[in-house]
Amino acid sequence: MQTIDLNCDMGEAFGNYPMPNDETLMNYITSANIACGYHAGDPAVMQQTVAMAIKKNVAIGAHPGLPDLQGFGRREMKISANEAYQITLYQIGALHAFVKAAGGKLNHVKAHGALYNMAAKDAALAKAIVQAVHDFDPSLILYALAGSQMVEAAHKISIKTASEVFADRTYQDDGSLTPRTQSNAMITNEADSIKQVLLMVKQQQVISTSGKTISLNADTLCLHGDGEHAVDFARTINERLKKEGIGIKTPSA
Amino acid sequence: MQTIDLNCDMGEAFGNYPMPNDETLMNYITSANIACGYHAGDPAVMQQTVAMAIKKNVAIGAHPGLPDLQGFGRREMKISANEAYQITLYQIGALHAFVKAAGGKLNHVKAHGALYNMAAKDAALAKAIVQAVHDFDPSLILYALAGSQMVEAAHKISIKTASEVFADRTYQDDGSLTPRTQSNAMITNEADSIKQVLLMVKQQQVISTSGKTISLNADTLCLHGDGEHAVDFARTINERLKKEGIGIKTPSA
Amino acid sequence: MQTIDLNCDMGEAFGNYPMPNDETLMNYITSANIACGYHAGDPAVMQQTVAMAIKKNVAIGAHPGLPDLQGFGRREMKISANEAYQITLYQIGALHAFVKAAGGKLNHVKAHGALYNMAAKDAALAKAIVQAVHDFDPSLILYALAGSQMVEAAHKISIKTASEVFADRTYQDDGSLTPRTQSNAMITNEADSIKQVLLMVKQQQVISTSGKTISLNADTLCLHGDGEHAVDFARTINERLKKEGIGIKTPSA
Amino acid sequence: MQTIDLNCDMGEAFGNYPMPNDETLMNYITSANIACGYHAGDPAVMQQTVAMAIKKNVAIGAHPGLPDLQGFGRREMKISANEAYQITLYQIGALHAFVKAAGGKLNHVKAHGALYNMAAKDAALAKAIVQAVHDFDPSLILYALAGSQMVEAAHKISIKTASEVFADRTYQDDGSLTPRTQSNAMITNEADSIKQVLLMVKQQQVISTSGKTISLNADTLCLHGDGEHAVDFARTINERLKKEGIGIKTPSA
Repeated sequence: MQTIDLNCDMGEAFGNYPMPNDETLMNYITSANIACGYHAGDPAVMQQTVAMAIKKNVAIGAHPGLPDLQGFGRREMKISANEAYQITLYQIGALHAFVKAAGGKLNHVKAHGALYNMAAKDAALAKAIVQAVHDFDPSLILYALAGSQMVEAAHKISIKTASEVFADRTYQDDGSLTPRTQSNAMITNEADSIKQVLLMVKQQQVISTSGKTISLNADTLCLHGDGEHAVDFARTINERLKKEGIGIKTPSA
Repeated sequence: MQTIDLNCDMGEAFGNYPMPNDETLMNYITSANIACGYHAGDPAVMQQTVAMAIKKNVAIGAHPGLPDLQGFGRREMKISANEAYQITLYQIGALHAFVKAAGGKLNHVKAHGALYNMAAKDAALAKAIVQAVHDFDPSLILYALAGSQMVEAAHKISIKTASEVFADRTYQDDGSLTPRTQSNAMITNEADSIKQVLLMVKQQQVISTSGKTISLNADTLCLHGDGEHAVDFARTINERLKKEGIGIKTPSA
Repeated sequence: MQTIDLNCDMGEAFGNYPMPNDETLMNYITSANIACGYHAGDPAVMQQTVAMAIKKNVAIGAHPGLPDLQGFGRREMKISANEAYQITLYQIGALHAFVKAAGGKLNHVKAHGALYNMAAKDAALAKAIVQAVHDFDPSLILYALAGSQMVEAAHKISIKTASEVFADRTYQDDGSLTPRTQSNAMITNEADSIKQVLLMVKQQQVISTSGKTISLNADTLCLHGDGEHAVDFARTINERLKKEGIGIKTPSA
Repeated sequence: MQTIDLNCDMGEAFGNYPMPNDETLMNYITSANIACGYHAGDPAVMQQTVAMAIKKNVAIGAHPGLPDLQGFGRREMKISANEAYQITLYQIGALHAFVKAAGGKLNHVKAHGALYNMAAKDAALAKAIVQAVHDFDPSLILYALAGSQMVEAAHKISIKTASEVFADRTYQDDGSLTPRTQSNAMITNEADSIKQVLLMVKQQQVISTSGKTISLNADTLCLHGDGEHAVDFARTINERLKKEGIGIKTPSA
């Protein structure tokens, strides 16, 4: 049976600021990437989100970001490879403590926002992040953009990877995501999103913006947790995939 | 042979701000309490300090503090027991990641500053902190003020403790430290400090400010890392203890 | 004509975290207390909120809080009077810059959360905060709990005050608010809230929890900006006050 | 008489971390750029540093930086022009409050670290920062890299500028600083530094790394406040300039 993992960024509340969709979304996903306090999240949110994930049997991943709460980790920062290693290790460790205390198991690591995007293209950053994952626990799975430097870096030191694809982003001929600065970067029509997902999951292919059929690895699909329609789309895609006979499972299962 | 542990707060540099004594102090201590990024420290400092401690064969402890970098964790904050649990767990986890990645072993936990002082007197905070230590790893040792609520809370859930004593603080008849608000709180004369240390280590006793001889447990002696004379005093006390035939060892050794 | 000011804490969004009621609430209030980046708010939010207030002709106040974003400024911190002076001055200055750049006028200062509550009872903190207001601009108005140390401290150095009252809090015989730890601290019934407001505004009186009629100054009524019913209650009380022939005006008007 | 301003970044201590040279350096400089709490500094440090500057009759400037305390504002962040405007305005306002409360006068603004360097080359950032200066107080002077986009942006909206030159940095043929990534970026020999300063101040010229004589405006010379020799160099250059008959004065004097 074909399978796909559905992952979503979780635990991105902070202090007095809630992220109200988290609990409901846990019903439709198989992997939760939990923020670690740098771009979002705090110790209270981390504890609660880990507890929710364990209760709903969702795989838990650390979701380290840049130290930029105000920018939600979305503003690029020129950090060195050493700094990338250090902040990744710190955040994995912090989340791991909550998972361990709750009797759970840390399954994966997925970088957040600008850290994810920078490391997708920058081999040195990618290597540093992957090394941090490895040095903490070489059995962890790296979730990273399909075809990115991150996936390559992980392969080099034998870290397992889950190649990530997007339902609402268009792709270029080289398999990269269309930059958000371009007008055709986003897929806003739900039917088109679902169609792209099914092609990616069933055929490991995507149609680029120029009309070419591109191969890509689709191990895990990223669902967005915020926005009005986040919960609806998560439920819809979950049900549709099942209807198509596709198993929804974590990469480790 | 009688033994005593010499502990010191380490890794309290931050970003561009150095703590230049750390490396030298590592020569004279047996336990390093390493800051975890809340009251001081950052991922780069944590990595470097862990590496130094491993190189010098100094036992490594997490040194969690209140989330108050500007106040260096010295300003009391009214946090709930849950919050104390969460911030302790977060910080232990973050430090543990650096220790694990470097191939070391986490030995102990010692709370910092206002968190240490608040939990010494507040049974609910003490219980929460000790529970966090336990839930992360029940084999960790809690370093805490001799005779405090922290020590008591640790005993209740079978966490090993090292009772901490001070060279430069005077004691009250009930075994508590003289509050810093009182003029006789500090011992500023080095000879008096050394005399108090020897009595504490050899006899497990201290002379209170009223002249009474008090019993107390002295498993670990706190050395200060900052100030001009910190390194000198660390070397002096280390040499003197050895001369007296007292073994300088971590509680776990 | 009798008048009352309606004030509300505004601009308490942060980064990616919105406070969606702010714009609507501006229609029903006469004073906006705008967060200054310590307990909530950031430079972008401050700029937007100042612009909204100017557009809606709402008086602008600085709303300084404790440096505790995670605790939303609601956790007491043992800060010195000097520190209270410094953080108040810093935050007033930061907000003032946005007001000045937008061509507006800073009208008042209201401390937030734990800083407000601590200074209501602690004369030294109250004096320090009031001194910061004075040293920045002695024509600013201090909004503070009716009958508090803050009001007293302001009178001593001739800072104008607006005594603040609450629609949803009960009062003790001595005119103080019933602590939230007591079960009868909150008024949850809207009709009771309105009744209390009308008595306070019309008669400058309130009925204490023991049934006594207490005198208090009611210059400004605090409306809450968060919660589901915040907007509804703001509109309701605004309309009802007008219906009763009470003018809704800032204290400076 | 020829004149030059000597400026130095001041108030870059934070919380428990001192910057011990500040007080002595005030004797040798005419302009202090005071950190505003984003890359360094805090309300206590700001208050003390402003007081020192007033006492020593040193002109006071705001020294806004990126919101990156750990990186000391030296790591580039991809911020929008709007964000640059907002963080500049916030920090100017915060510092201005301390200056106003102390009875002083804000003289200038100089961006810090990565913000300074980014805005030197990026016209949109430069325009945003200059606009913030203008909107707060159009009589403030912008201190900025000689020949940079910042100077140009200031001229466009009639903000006065002081073109800044460096004693310890080499220059390229186009008048730009040699990037620090190049081995010949720094002048480490004191005699060479002094020679370069005298040429810049007396002739408004500098010899580039390729040996060309370049014209540049030298209104203010940046002295470094940290490092072992900072105080010595400040005194040396101050005395030498006086000996050469050059007046040491702020641009506004």
